[in-house]
Parts: sequence; structure tokens; C-alpha cells
Amino acid sequence: MAVITIIGIGQIGSALAFVAAENGNRIRFVGTPVDKEVVDACIRDGRHPKMDLPYPEGTQYFYCENWQDAVTGSDFVIGAISSFGVDWFLEAILKKLDPSMPVLSATKGLADLGDGTLVSYPDYWVRALRKCGIRRNIYALGGPGTAMGIMHRDHTQVVICGKDSALLKKMKSALETSWFHISLTKDARGLETAVAIKNAYALGVAMALGHARKEQGGEDDSHCNSQAAVFTQAVKEMIRVLELQNAQFDSTLIGIGDLYVTATGARTRKLGLLLGEGKTCEEAQELLGGMTLESLVVIRRLADAITIRARKGQVSLEDFPLLHFVISVLDSGKMEELPWKQFTFENL
Amino acid sequence: MAVITIIGIGQIGSALAFVAAENGNRIRFVGTPVDKEVVDACIRDGRHPKMDLPYPEGTQYFYCENWQDAVTGSDFVIGAISSFGVDWFLEAILKKLDPSMPVLSATKGLADLGDGTLVSYPDYWVRALRKCGIRRNIYALGGPGTAMGIMHRDHTQVVICGKDSALLKKMKSALETSWFHISLTKDARGLETAVAIKNAYALGVAMALGHARKEQGGEDDSHCNSQAAVFTQAVKEMIRVLELQNAQFDSTLIGIGDLYVTATGARTRKLGLLLGEGKTCEEAQELLGGMTLESLVVIRRLADAITIRARKGQVSLEDFPLLHFVISVLDSGKMEELPWKQFTFENL
Repeated sequence: MAVITIIGIGQIGSALAFVAAENGNRIRFVGTPVDKEVVDACIRDGRHPKMDLPYPEGTQYFYCENWQDAVTGSDFVIGAISSFGVDWFLEAILKKLDPSMPVLSATKGLADLGDGTLVSYPDYWVRALRKCGIRRNIYALGGPGTAMGIMHRDHTQVVICGKDSALLKKMKSALETSWFHISLTKDARGLETAVAIKNAYALGVAMALGHARKEQGGEDDSHCNSQAAVFTQAVKEMIRVLELQNAQFDSTLIGIGDLYVTATGARTRKLGLLLGEGKTCEEAQELLGGMTLESLVVIRRLADAITIRARKGQVSLEDFPLLHFVISVLDSGKMEELPWKQFTFENL
Repeated sequence: MAVITIIGIGQIGSALAFVAAENGNRIRFVGTPVDKEVVDACIRDGRHPKMDLPYPEGTQYFYCENWQDAVTGSDFVIGAISSFGVDWFLEAILKKLDPSMPVLSATKGLADLGDGTLVSYPDYWVRALRKCGIRRNIYALGGPGTAMGIMHRDHTQVVICGKDSALLKKMKSALETSWFHISLTKDARGLETAVAIKNAYALGVAMALGHARKEQGGEDDSHCNSQAAVFTQAVKEMIRVLELQNAQFDSTLIGIGDLYVTATGARTRKLGLLLGEGKTCEEAQELLGGMTLESLVVIRRLADAITIRARKGQVSLEDFPLLHFVISVLDSGKMEELPWKQFTFENL
């Protein structure tokens, strides 16, 4: 049994709280600055105001200014903040947190160093901390798991990555349940890249479906072929990006599984369907109720990084026709036919 | 413009007829011995009795005993028979057909040489013909395309594979349209293996969904995580099989795209859902209206080949837990929990 502090009371933090509590761990939630009313509600009702299920008994709740009280005596900290809180987490928490306190981050995304290098958020934080003379490792959790699926106890495979094998095993043993399956790897950059870039490509698959629905009508299963053609190209381009990141084979596979789940059932899919039907990005986001679509940030960073690398002669833009297509539609707000012929090959 | 004889008046033959006619090619259909009544109906009505759409004007229909009349003057022959007609096609057609007449086969599946070697049907036919002193090449068409999707003019990518580059290009140019996209490769064994073995793995993904639906209830999108975990493992095992077949990277990618389409929208999915809910294979097939499920033949051959190769020390059965699971359920008729922990890894 461990005491685990989860910083950020959103979907993924909640999902991990249920998982961790199932193993008998005790949970302490810390709200971010935007979570004040959520903490109020949790203290009052024992549950998140937007969720039906109450948090496990014994869960404690802390306002963000009292985060040190929560962390004291904890075995490790889970950072469950959105990618928009990455710099807040760095400044308000990581710079002040005891470097011996292990941190596991569930934030999905990639940081762009500006020269075509994409790094994971843990890597981004570790670099920034080092500049302040703080040396620490940060661990990450990623993989094809929607928070909703985890809360429904759907069998889920995630990966925890980072440097120290013993600590990886400790985190796995704290969080693993009969339906929450955890792989371990030291390939943090590969894994975090894989589960981030799938957003760009899942968007492409969903755009093709939205476009086909609008152009041809018919049920979804009359548009399987076009989705499959885009899926094939998506996997091809993802593997090319992951080779640039020196990703291990298992990390790439997790990215492909995550592409599948995102293309068939996640928020990015809904955005892609609307874009494919001809909505602009703004219209689509409005229709989706102003969801904060972190995937759009990742897509932009990926496209920028590939463009810079192409300028340096490290890649050829012709090898990324699907990424180029997705970014063009986002930029122009105008859906076009996909570059199908560019997805074909002649190996003669 | 070419004259194309299509042997077999089923779904895929019909779909290819529409594609070919769009380019101005003239189509001659030849029924197999089981198609007699279909040929009757086609001659009478100009359409397949089970389809709404009439065949293109000018299409001619031949009973199987008159196949030589159809072939005479054709530019090439498309074999569009089910895998249950493979030996009939060999004996009745291929052994008698002028070896200079090009043949493109759309039959999906793999033949098992009995020693753990899996070969494509074209390869199987070429070997059998060589024993009779007949030397010919046979080309194949495969890829993630359901016949229904093709008939709905959904953008589709397929691959034509075989030995002679000029002939590959000729077939592509005859069949390619603005929405039917054709890649070319010489990697016939890799490509045909990729598009055949995906059946075993798509069945596994669908079984996981059927099981989750039954155990947990809820909408399909609350079971994305479990599907993704199985999809990840499916891709891993497919890549292992394809490495044994020395498949090219592009062939493997086509197989992954085909896995996607089969897991999300094809007949194999329906079978997998029923098996996952606990039906036996016989019950499931009955519920599906006695569909001829060619995929079951391929799954059995794949599993047998891997078992033989494991006995020879060429592979380790532990590397194929999903295939083993699928075959166990088919054999025992009893759905079990998937071997989730075997899908995880520790790369430390």
C-alpha cells in the first residue's frame, strides 16, 4: 500500500485514482489553480462535479496552495495535468518539490525545442530543472487508454517509462490491477512520441470518414476501405517519425494501438469527422462544446518539426503527405480530397 | 481499353467488374460450377440476383463449360473465386489455359505445404502447374478493400503483385480509377500473407469487444481500451509472422490497414463479436446465416504452420499468445478471458 498524491483533478487523474485505490493505495488529490471549485465540490460531496461515481473512501482533497501538505509523506506524485498546465507544473511544483520524491506524469504531448527536436514533457521539465541546478528524473505513463474506458474497468494496457528500473517496477506494482495492465520501458522519448503523434494521424483517418459520409452518404461500413487506406498511410508516416526519434519497436506498436483507439473512439475522432464534413476548425471546436483539444497543439508541433527537419535535409516532405494534408486543412479551414495517389507505392 | 474475363460471379468479381468498366474495359463473366443459376439470372436481367445494381452495359455472361469462348480474345483473366474453389480453378481452368494469357487472382487466403510453409494461392498454383510441365506466372490482387466499399465507390487502395513489372503496370492501368488506387509490388508472398493472416487477428480484436460488451455492458466506446490492447498485440504478432515470410515493409503496412478494416467492419468482425459473447463457432456461423467464412480456414492454417515451426525450433509459441487464444476458443467453443498479462512487456 502506498500513499499517492495526484496533482490535477481531471479525467485521467480521476481514472488513475480509481485504479490506484483498487490496490488499497491511499489517494490525495491536489487541484490546480483552475480546479478550485472542483476541490470545493470534492470536499463537500466526495466526488467530481462532472462525474457520477464518488471517489474511493478515504481520498483527501487539497487546494493547490496546500500541495506541500499533500506531498509530505506520499510515496510518489502523479502529475495529471493537461498539456496547457505544463509550465505551471514546472514553476509551481517541480521547481519546489523535493528531488527525491518520484514523479509520474500522465500528461500527453510533446514539447518542441524549436530546432526540429521533439521531446517528451518529462524530458522538457528535466532540461528546465537542470538549468536551475535541480537534478531529477521524471517518469511518464502513456498508452491507448481513454479515461472513460479505465473508469469502466475496461481492460487497458499502458506503459510507464523512465530511467530507474526499480522505481518503474515499484510504480507498476502500485498501479497494476487485474484489468489495468502495465508495460515498462526505458524508451521514454519513443513512447511519448508514439502516443502523442497518433493524434495527427487519427485526425486524418476521421477526416476521411467525415468526407466520405458527406460526399457519398451511406452507412459507416460502406466507408471502411477509405479509412483503411488512410490508416495504412498513417502507420507508415508514424513509423517514419518514430524512426527519427529512435523509438523501440514496442513503443511504435503502442502508438499504433493508440492510433486505433483514437481513430475509432476518442475526441480527436469527433473533431476529424466535423473537419471532414467541411467545418472549419473553429466551427468544429464550437460544435464540440469548446473542448480543449490538446491534440491540435501536438499536430502543429509535429508539422513544424518535420518542416524544419526537411529544411535541414534530414527528411523529405514527400514522405509525409498525410501530415501535410491534415495541416493544410487545419490552416485553410477548407476540406479537400485526400492525396490518395500519394499513398500508393510501386516496388518494382 | 481491354477485354477482361472475370471467372467467378461473386462479390469481389462484381466489384472488380464495376471498376474495370469505369475505365471503358469490356467485361466477360464466367460462372463457376456453383454459379449456374446466377448466370441464368445475369443473362436474363443483366444483374446479379443478390445485387441491386445492374452490371455495366455490354457485359457478357458465360456458363463455366464455355469458359474458353470468354477467354479467347481477352487481354487478361481475373480469377475471382472463393478459396473453396482453389482446386477447381487449378484443374478446370489453369491446367487448360494458354500459358501466355495473364491471370490476376483476387482469391484471398494461404495454402499450407504441410511443413510449416505458407504460400499464396498463386504460388500454390504455379507449383502444381510446374509439376504438369506448365510454366506460367500468376498475379494477385489484395488489400484492405471490401467488395461493398468498392461498389460504393469508396476510395480503396489495393496492391497487385507478381513477377513482371510491365504486366503489373498494364493491369494497374486497366483497373485504376479516380477512387480505386493500385500499388504494385513483387513481394507476392509477403503481401498475400499480410492480407490473409489479418483474419486471425481481427477475430481476436472483435472477440475482445464481444466479451467486454457481455461482461460489462455499456456502449462500444467504453471498450476502446481493450480493443486497442488487442490491436497492439495483433500488429506485433502479424509483424512476427510476416518477418518469417520475409515480407517487405509496405506489404506489412497493407496488412495492418487490412486488420483495421476487418476489425471494424467486415464479416470476420461479426463472427468475433458472437464468439466473444460466448457462442460456439457453429452457433455463430448459424446466426450469420451460414456465411462461408474463409477466414476460419486461414486461421487454422496459420496456427498449424506456427505450431510446426515451433516444433522445429524456428519460432517460440510464447510469441503468439493472441493466435493461441483465438485458436483455443475456436477449438473449445468456450470463450475465456484474454491472456492480457502476456500482451505486456518489460524492456528494462
